[in-house]
Amino acid sequence: MNDVLPTIAEVMAAAQRIRPYAHRTPVLTCSGLDAMTGAVLFFKCENFQRVGAFKFRGAANAVFSLSDEEARRGVATHSSGNHAAALALAARLRGVSAHVVMPRTARTVKRAAVAGYGARIVLCEPTLAAREATLADVVADTGATVVHPYNDARVIAGQGTAALELVGEVPSLDVVLAPVGGGGLLSGTAIAVAGASPGTRVVGAEPAAADDAFRSLREGRIVPAVAPATIADGLLTSLGTLTFAVIRECVAEIVTVSEDAIVAAMRHTWERMKIVIEPSSAVPLGAMLEGKLPAAGRRIGVIVSGGNVDLADLPWSRG
Amino acid sequence: MNDVLPTIAEVMAAAQRIRPYAHRTPVLTCSGLDAMTGAVLFFKCENFQRVGAFKFRGAANAVFSLSDEEARRGVATHSSGNHAAALALAARLRGVSAHVVMPRTARTVKRAAVAGYGARIVLCEPTLAAREATLADVVADTGATVVHPYNDARVIAGQGTAALELVGEVPSLDVVLAPVGGGGLLSGTAIAVAGASPGTRVVGAEPAAADDAFRSLREGRIVPAVAPATIADGLLTSLGTLTFAVIRECVAEIVTVSEDAIVAAMRHTWERMKIVIEPSSAVPLGAMLEGKLPAAGRRIGVIVSGGNVDLADLPWSRG
Repeated sequence: MNDVLPTIAEVMAAAQRIRPYAHRTPVLTCSGLDAMTGAVLFFKCENFQRVGAFKFRGAANAVFSLSDEEARRGVATHSSGNHAAALALAARLRGVSAHVVMPRTARTVKRAAVAGYGARIVLCEPTLAAREATLADVVADTGATVVHPYNDARVIAGQGTAALELVGEVPSLDVVLAPVGGGGLLSGTAIAVAGASPGTRVVGAEPAAADDAFRSLREGRIVPAVAPATIADGLLTSLGTLTFAVIRECVAEIVTVSEDAIVAAMRHTWERMKIVIEPSSAVPLGAMLEGKLPAAGRRIGVIVSGGNVDLADLPWSRG
Repeated sequence: MNDVLPTIAEVMAAAQRIRPYAHRTPVLTCSGLDAMTGAVLFFKCENFQRVGAFKFRGAANAVFSLSDEEARRGVATHSSGNHAAALALAARLRGVSAHVVMPRTARTVKRAAVAGYGARIVLCEPTLAAREATLADVVADTGATVVHPYNDARVIAGQGTAALELVGEVPSLDVVLAPVGGGGLLSGTAIAVAGASPGTRVVGAEPAAADDAFRSLREGRIVPAVAPATIADGLLTSLGTLTFAVIRECVAEIVTVSEDAIVAAMRHTWERMKIVIEPSSAVPLGAMLEGKLPAAGRRIGVIVSGGNVDLADLPWSRG
């Protein structure tokens, strides 16, 4: 089932499944940002989600979808970011083991976060080949189920639950905007909105400096990201087969955003809304600031993907 | 009426009066900070209030308490901080003029904020004598009503509405903690809690480097702040006669907090809760981190006073 496109039914089932574990995050509004963009914005704040990012939704749906027998053998992934922390926490909540393959070069703070949630960290050389070989070894040893960060139907369905909550709480949205990296959030959002609020368009927002999803949609095939260089470091990955298939079918448009607009949007969000969001989460608002979408009076939902950021290295303080 | 101690009835009337204008701010919890302190913390987030601080509550209560005839002559204050912005916005909402006396040396960004809310700014030399003389001139010219930032019964009652909402939403708190500078927030909080949740203690938290309220309570007289030097720049002022009288009667204790604990608390709040708070707002959590209050399992409400901070000059990024 994990390589079949999920439907709205799976997103609704995911919402039920993760309800005891995930936060129902608030939807915030900000008259200052409305004035700045001309739109009426509704921010679904996944920066307040457990582990500080929407990733917990997909990981929790995957872990709690496992049969008892599968669960006993644990879960595994290779990731050094939010997905690893999310999978570690979800596994701990189910009382099973999580094995996380990380490059030796991963920052200490990231290792500590994952270890803090009780996962076993398996270090490897910092190449994709080494990561994949090490993950295969872990699976051979343990029988753990691999949970991919985005190209997995259970993960996509879980990510869609944020938008499901948003459209359930805020009726008559014209558009829902979500950032796109590997496409798990955007494809889950698209399935949820198509099913639960069919009059609402779903638009992806991507850094112009990492515009592989934009190109993929235009060319009708997965165009890999080549040397992406953006401050939005959660959006460096290329689409997967599943996420591309969903995006192609259900996403109206992908718009691209300059680095300057991403930084400006991040700063405006901190200053006006008083919330900490990571650069990747600022990409949708950046698109609005650059006029990439019609704004005047339109009701636009924005999925704020996360708030994990190095407070000692903020973009507006760099020399 | 403005120099008589307000009662719970005035706080309740203030809540009714400002309801159409002020935000009812959310109460947030954070398992990470609970684990760090051992307490069960409930954060009343006035950083999400209009103008980014609780100050809007008091200013709005003062402005909307005026008779029509008083209101027509406008309001005035000397302040360069959150109170000036709050008074300017409240006056604009009532459709009357606000005159704000500011020193010529006030930062451009502060002037712009106040001017942005439509107030008339009157510049003066940067001394207390010049401010007071200039304010007196403004009042002589216009007949405007002076609204003091804290030593005013209408302002104190307005500030108390944040705690009134908190204890109404979260029952059985053991303690409510609020920062103390001039004492408007702490005294309003004390009146609200004594009236609406009499089993709950109210404790003030003050920077050790600006501990004039702590000394005032100990000595039984207002001890002025002498050369206070704290990062919590909202807490530099000394108590007023009204706020001291209330604090003496209704506040159980004032605890003092080191600069290191204030910075650590601010950073933990940003990192764990993903909200932007100003240094003054971190003082209560700093007290918990330093073990200044019994914590184990106790339910503690924290008034988070505001979120106006210079993002380009954060304490953990200073050389």
